[in-house]
Amino acid sequence: MQEITSFQNSKIKLANRLVNKRQRDKEKLFLVDYARDLNRALDNQYQVEFAFFCEALATEDDKVLLSQLDDNLVYHVNSDLMAKASYRQNPSGLVAIMQQKPLLTVTSLQNSELTSNILALVDLRKPGNIGALLRTADSAGFTSICLIDSALDIYNPNIIRASTGTVFLDNIYQMTSDEAVIFFKENNISIVAAHLEGQQSLYDIDFRSEHKVIVLGTEDTGLNEEWVGFSNELVKIPMIGQVSDSLNVSVSGAIFMYEALRQQQFG
Amino acid sequence: MQEITSFQNSKIKLANRLVNKRQRDKEKLFLVDYARDLNRALDNQYQVEFAFFCEALATEDDKVLLSQLDDNLVYHVNSDLMAKASYRQNPSGLVAIMQQKPLLTVTSLQNSELTSNILALVDLRKPGNIGALLRTADSAGFTSICLIDSALDIYNPNIIRASTGTVFLDNIYQMTSDEAVIFFKENNISIVAAHLEGQQSLYDIDFRSEHKVIVLGTEDTGLNEEWVGFSNELVKIPMIGQVSDSLNVSVSGAIFMYEALRQQQFG
Repeated sequence: MQEITSFQNSKIKLANRLVNKRQRDKEKLFLVDYARDLNRALDNQYQVEFAFFCEALATEDDKVLLSQLDDNLVYHVNSDLMAKASYRQNPSGLVAIMQQKPLLTVTSLQNSELTSNILALVDLRKPGNIGALLRTADSAGFTSICLIDSALDIYNPNIIRASTGTVFLDNIYQMTSDEAVIFFKENNISIVAAHLEGQQSLYDIDFRSEHKVIVLGTEDTGLNEEWVGFSNELVKIPMIGQVSDSLNVSVSGAIFMYEALRQQQFG
Repeated sequence: MQEITSFQNSKIKLANRLVNKRQRDKEKLFLVDYARDLNRALDNQYQVEFAFFCEALATEDDKVLLSQLDDNLVYHVNSDLMAKASYRQNPSGLVAIMQQKPLLTVTSLQNSELTSNILALVDLRKPGNIGALLRTADSAGFTSICLIDSALDIYNPNIIRASTGTVFLDNIYQMTSDEAVIFFKENNISIVAAHLEGQQSLYDIDFRSEHKVIVLGTEDTGLNEEWVGFSNELVKIPMIGQVSDSLNVSVSGAIFMYEALRQQQFG
C-alpha cells in the first residue's frame, strides 16, 4: 500500500494545479473527485494517471471504484490531505487524476454518423451552464454537441460536476464559428437559433422533417449578429409572465431539446 | 448629499449582516444589489429603507433608479465601501436595503383567485434552484408558487439573483406539507409529482382539463414518500440518453411548466 503523508508531496501539488486550465492543457491531465463522475469516465475508457484514496471519507461507491483501479496507481491519504487534493467543500473518499483524450474537432464531427439533432453552444462563459446543458443533452438523446468559440476546456471541474459525468461521452466537438457554419451548410443541417427577438415560436418549429442544430448564445447578450445572419430560423420561447423577459440558458436549451424530443418520439 | 466614509459605519455593517437569514428575520430587511432586481422590487411596492450609491461604479440603469429614490435615504460611498456593502464580486453602483413584506401563507393562497396551474417546491435546499424556478414560473405564466417545508426565506440573496427579481411578484406562499395537501385536496387541485420512478410520461399528462399543481422535490433525493402517497399522478420526464438518469431540478421544473403552457396555449 502506497501512502502520502505530506502536503508538499508533488502529486498533491499537481492535483491542486489542475484546477487551472493552463496547467491542465500543459499536463494533459484533469481531476475527478466524485464517484458518479469517475464511474462515467472509466466507462468511457478514460485512463487513470493516479488516484488518492481516504478510508475515513470513503463511501460504498468509492470502495467499489477503488477495487477496479490498479493498486500501483493508488495513494492512501488522510482526510486533511484529501481536503487539499479535492476541489469540493466536502471531499469524497476517492479522487482521480486522469489523462485527457485528444480534442474532438469539426473533422471528427464530419466523420461521425449523425443520429440525432445537434446542440451548439456559442461562446458560453459559465461552466455550470455548459455542464447542465451536457447533462440535459444526454437525457434528451442529443448525441452531438458543438462547443463553439469556447475559452473553456471540457475538463473544467465545474463542467464535469454540472454535467454529472456526461462530459465524458466523447460527443463534444470544439470548433470556431466559421468551421461550424461551413459544416452545417454543407450537410444541409438547418440552423435553429434561440433568440429573444425571434419571430417564430418554438412551438411552430417542426423538428421532424430534417436534421437541425439548436444554437444557443452567450448568457448575457445571447447570440451574436454573425450567428443571427447564419440562422435559418430565429426562435423564441413564448414568455407570458408579468416581468420575466428571458430564461437561464441551461433552461432555454432544455426546453428546446425536450420539445424536439417530444415531437420526434412522443408527438 | 449624505456621505459614508467609514467601514465601521452602522449602515454598512447592517448591510453585511443581512447576508444571514437570522439577521434578515430579525431586522425585517433585505439587500438588493442589482438594478434589474431593484427595479422589479420597486415596481411591486417594496419600500427602500436606505441605499448606497457609488458614482464611480454607477451604470445608466443605476442612475435612473437613483433619480426615483428619496434623497434622504441615499448615502454616497466610494467603490471600496460599495465592495464591502454589496454581495457581488463586481459590485454595482446602487445597493438598496429594503423592507420585507409580510409572509404569504396558505391563508393568502386560499383567498387568491387561481388563474393558472400551481408550482410547488418541497424542501428544496439550493437557493439558486429556487430562484431559477421562480424566473421560469413567471415566464411560463405560473402565477402561484408554494414553497413547502422550506428552511430558506425568499430574501436569500441567491434566490433574488437567480430569480432576476421575479421573487418580488407577491405570489410565493410558504406552508407546511400538511397545509399544502389539505388545500390541494379541498380545492380539487390534482397533484402531479415529478418523480424518477413515475409510471407516466410527462407527455401523457393532460394539462388542459383541470387545475393542477406540479410538485418538485429535493435536489438529491427527489420527492419524499409522504408526497408520493399524496400524489394523483407520478410523472417522469422521458430520458433516452446513454448515461444520464436525472435532470437538475430547475431544468425538470422548466420542462414540466413549459409542457403545461404548450398544451394550454400552443397545443
